Amino acid sequence: MKNVPLKGIIAYPITPFDKNEKVDIKLYKKLVERLVKSGSHGIAPLGSTGVLPYLTDDEKEAITEVTLQQVNGRLPVMVGVSNLTTERTIYHAKFAEKVGANAVMIIPMSYWKLTDDEIVQHYDKVASSISVPIMAYNNPATGGVDMSPKLLKRLLEIPNVTMIKESSGDVQRMHFLRKELGEEVAFFNGSNPLALAAFAAGATGWCTAAPNLIPKLNIELYNAIKNNNLVEAQEKFYKQLELLQFIVSKGLPRSIKAGLTILNEDGGYLRSPLKEMNQLEIEKLTDILSKI
Amino acid sequence: MKNVPLKGIIAYPITPFDKNEKVDIKLYKKLVERLVKSGSHGIAPLGSTGVLPYLTDDEKEAITEVTLQQVNGRLPVMVGVSNLTTERTIYHAKFAEKVGANAVMIIPMSYWKLTDDEIVQHYDKVASSISVPIMAYNNPATGGVDMSPKLLKRLLEIPNVTMIKESSGDVQRMHFLRKELGEEVAFFNGSNPLALAAFAAGATGWCTAAPNLIPKLNIELYNAIKNNNLVEAQEKFYKQLELLQFIVSKGLPRSIKAGLTILNEDGGYLRSPLKEMNQLEIEKLTDILSKI
Amino acid sequence: MKNVPLKGIIAYPITPFDKNEKVDIKLYKKLVERLVKSGSHGIAPLGSTGVLPYLTDDEKEAITEVTLQQVNGRLPVMVGVSNLTTERTIYHAKFAEKVGANAVMIIPMSYWKLTDDEIVQHYDKVASSISVPIMAYNNPATGGVDMSPKLLKRLLEIPNVTMIKESSGDVQRMHFLRKELGEEVAFFNGSNPLALAAFAAGATGWCTAAPNLIPKLNIELYNAIKNNNLVEAQEKFYKQLELLQFIVSKGLPRSIKAGLTILNEDGGYLRSPLKEMNQLEIEKLTDILSKI
Amino acid sequence: MKNVPLKGIIAYPITPFDKNEKVDIKLYKKLVERLVKSGSHGIAPLGSTGVLPYLTDDEKEAITEVTLQQVNGRLPVMVGVSNLTTERTIYHAKFAEKVGANAVMIIPMSYWKLTDDEIVQHYDKVASSISVPIMAYNNPATGGVDMSPKLLKRLLEIPNVTMIKESSGDVQRMHFLRKELGEEVAFFNGSNPLALAAFAAGATGWCTAAPNLIPKLNIELYNAIKNNNLVEAQEKFYKQLELLQFIVSKGLPRSIKAGLTILNEDGGYLRSPLKEMNQLEIEKLTDILSKI
Repeated sequence: MKNVPLKGIIAYPITPFDKNEKVDIKLYKKLVERLVKSGSHGIAPLGSTGVLPYLTDDEKEAITEVTLQQVNGRLPVMVGVSNLTTERTIYHAKFAEKVGANAVMIIPMSYWKLTDDEIVQHYDKVASSISVPIMAYNNPATGGVDMSPKLLKRLLEIPNVTMIKESSGDVQRMHFLRKELGEEVAFFNGSNPLALAAFAAGATGWCTAAPNLIPKLNIELYNAIKNNNLVEAQEKFYKQLELLQFIVSKGLPRSIKAGLTILNEDGGYLRSPLKEMNQLEIEKLTDILSKI
Repeated sequence: MKNVPLKGIIAYPITPFDKNEKVDIKLYKKLVERLVKSGSHGIAPLGSTGVLPYLTDDEKEAITEVTLQQVNGRLPVMVGVSNLTTERTIYHAKFAEKVGANAVMIIPMSYWKLTDDEIVQHYDKVASSISVPIMAYNNPATGGVDMSPKLLKRLLEIPNVTMIKESSGDVQRMHFLRKELGEEVAFFNGSNPLALAAFAAGATGWCTAAPNLIPKLNIELYNAIKNNNLVEAQEKFYKQLELLQFIVSKGLPRSIKAGLTILNEDGGYLRSPLKEMNQLEIEKLTDILSKI
Repeated sequence: MKNVPLKGIIAYPITPFDKNEKVDIKLYKKLVERLVKSGSHGIAPLGSTGVLPYLTDDEKEAITEVTLQQVNGRLPVMVGVSNLTTERTIYHAKFAEKVGANAVMIIPMSYWKLTDDEIVQHYDKVASSISVPIMAYNNPATGGVDMSPKLLKRLLEIPNVTMIKESSGDVQRMHFLRKELGEEVAFFNGSNPLALAAFAAGATGWCTAAPNLIPKLNIELYNAIKNNNLVEAQEKFYKQLELLQFIVSKGLPRSIKAGLTILNEDGGYLRSPLKEMNQLEIEKLTDILSKI
Repeated sequence: MKNVPLKGIIAYPITPFDKNEKVDIKLYKKLVERLVKSGSHGIAPLGSTGVLPYLTDDEKEAITEVTLQQVNGRLPVMVGVSNLTTERTIYHAKFAEKVGANAVMIIPMSYWKLTDDEIVQHYDKVASSISVPIMAYNNPATGGVDMSPKLLKRLLEIPNVTMIKESSGDVQRMHFLRKELGEEVAFFNGSNPLALAAFAAGATGWCTAAPNLIPKLNIELYNAIKNNNLVEAQEKFYKQLELLQFIVSKGLPRSIKAGLTILNEDGGYLRSPLKEMNQLEIEKLTDILSKI
């Protein structure tokens, strides 16, 4: 696999806010440091978990810069640069490259449903503006557009689109990618409850917010797969499955923030309209975490 | 119905761009003037048709101001002020009120799925910041969140949320609203191919981009309903149905722009990633318009 | 419209069973007589309401014969003859014709998804075996196959397939049929909560089990439409909507049986695995009926 | 796992017909013998592949008897006994037990959507009428009812319901079963393209028609899993995936019949309305088989 700087457990930090709903940069740096030290294999700021679409351009730039400073080359960093317009996507992709990102991730955020040709042109224009590799990200549940495996295959023909992140929750999409594109395709799983099925299907890595809460189990699952030990992978997967399902069903920013509090870590505040978990949900999460 | 400044055919202008993908204000004013003169009963800038989410804050403010100047009290104006964050939604709602909007329209744009409580709080915070009435807009296909009829009922308990726009394409949602809330509820149809079914169900108005192309037929349908003449309403509806289906299936900004060109009107350019219709689609649209 | 013996309110009787889950022919005759006297415009035994698929061949034949005897030419009778195999469908269609049915209704019951060609051949073989007109019935929720409007259009090219019953719950399917096939197409609505929208779209009739419980309102809705009085149709529709929604959501055989009991009529027993409504559901239905 | 007579590759024979669409018993015996000799670990007549719902009661009994005679104890035999009514399901279950079946498989065939309570009672009544273990089969695509994991859990509380077959195509259902019910639950995969993901999730076996065409690859996949060799399992899976996807998308009876012809085996005829594959499909299947 050429031009694929990522593999294994790619950890997604949340973007914490202060009481006045301003980005809390100091706390953010602390949370990134935790992830680097957790043993994860990459850091991915400004993902869905990092509430990218809720931030201003200035905030996005600040988060990008401070992540690269904090990680400081210890791990590869992939920055989310998705935007509704092509012009703004190019702008943020160039900024990420300039300050040292190893890769950028792009989901075709859509309000108006984009045609396949519009999506290809969108990626093509961004790709030709930068040199770092791009991960094309499919997540119909958040982005609003569902890129078919055939469209993903087209995107991979763009020179620096070298990675696919599949979050549609359908393992058969991954089968298609692998079958069509061979062992050289670098596809990543973005659907937490599919972690085992995706690795079984041959995924290169797992893009996940879970290392904010349970990094050890996430990494042990990956290692079991690397060691061709399915029995152990199964065991590690079923230990963490309930947590993975819970954080997905309740929303990642809300869940990670609540989980950090339960673990006696500061997770800051959320930005409206996103609200904190209610008491019942917090109790459920406390119970799940205590059993792990 | 109290505090409901709109009824009948509410016309949605597109936001045209120049060659460099900058908003073309001069052309926009011309397009608004066409709609006012078309006989429509209200003007709604910065809707989905007006590519609200693809505009910067400055562009939104300019469009808002210029619409009110151009309409100049001849018709009620409802301004779209939706935003992912509550803070920005309040900002734009206040701006619209300040420059004279008769109402604002808000769709709960979502990246992370919002809970019902989050949505209610979002509307509540905006509503308590302004005095003009609010139209709550449900459109899962573009906004990404589907507000149940029960949630819409909750929203209507907020004093200045007085109107509902339903674009889910399910006429049974409208039945529910009418049955639950009685004849006093002001619900508007936002799904063009449901125009007849919605009026039959008792809709107060129809929010549509179609008056950019076929204002006469739109208004004749409404008048037939007002005259309790279902036979005539059917006839007027089936005459325009193919166009309504086409512009929805191809995307409103793309379709209206192409339709204006076919009618020898300048519709400007689109902003990337949105692209012009292809030749085949333009031919189809030409054929549909020629038969009307 | 040629060869279309039905219009207006087509009433579907239930098939009642005795305590031992045997068909209760005597009670069935009484229920059919009630429907004939109710003012409905046609009678349709062996529909979904009549639990066709749960009956043996002998039971189907008995129900067919006894319906025609009881109706005795007072109203047109359309008999359900659907079966998984083509051979059995032909058998029952011929039987229905022999004993005097005015039409037969056929839904392409599927276990294995049928291709469009298989469905066309299925109808074609049955149609060429009989002379009475056929109503092609689309109901993906019970039959398991969803016939596209385009496929329905193909079926209408078979000489004695002259009627379509649409129960997909999507009014736009009806718009398509009318637009493609013109005013001469006889399409019937089979989705109770869409009764008003379907008549507004131009439906020739409404296939419904509701006349077992509220025949007067059903017929008043139809008459208002015939009189081009949309305002009155709306009023009549909203009066019965809650009942229509309830009987659909709870299943027609269960609901009609319970409703008959509430109205002090004997509805007999159900055949397992179908079970009676629970007490809470019966109370809800009692409440709905008492308000009408 | 108690009372679980099956594991590994459970092979489903087709039911072949002669030119006049009568069951061809002689050919059926030959096809069963092929499956026994193929190395499969169990034989399952009268499944979806065996077109159970298209057969008369007499035909079902003949197929049941002849299967047990032909297998003659060499492998466990599980007979499909599903029927729309509870009475007929009991009848066929008792018959299967009487002639020596090791287990029966039951899908809750539904025309009217069954409530959870109705489904539980249906299984309960059948289970209490026989002593052999029951596999509860979930396949919304053919059976028309989708049993939730929670309902499946309830069914497993019935003493001789000891096995679950999941064909919903959602690997997360299997995760739920395993997590809720522990390692002792015997769940089987019925969705061919999920074969690898299901085994990775801990499935006890794979219910499949594929051994009619590619028994060696099916068994090699299972053996790799048994040997905890995920790398080899992946390799074996991707070799057969295209075939698995093809036979599912085109319908199993049609596909297996065509595949047998391509392999120079007699597969007999289909019963209407099911039709042979067209030439293009046969060529595609020939190509897929030739590459294996």
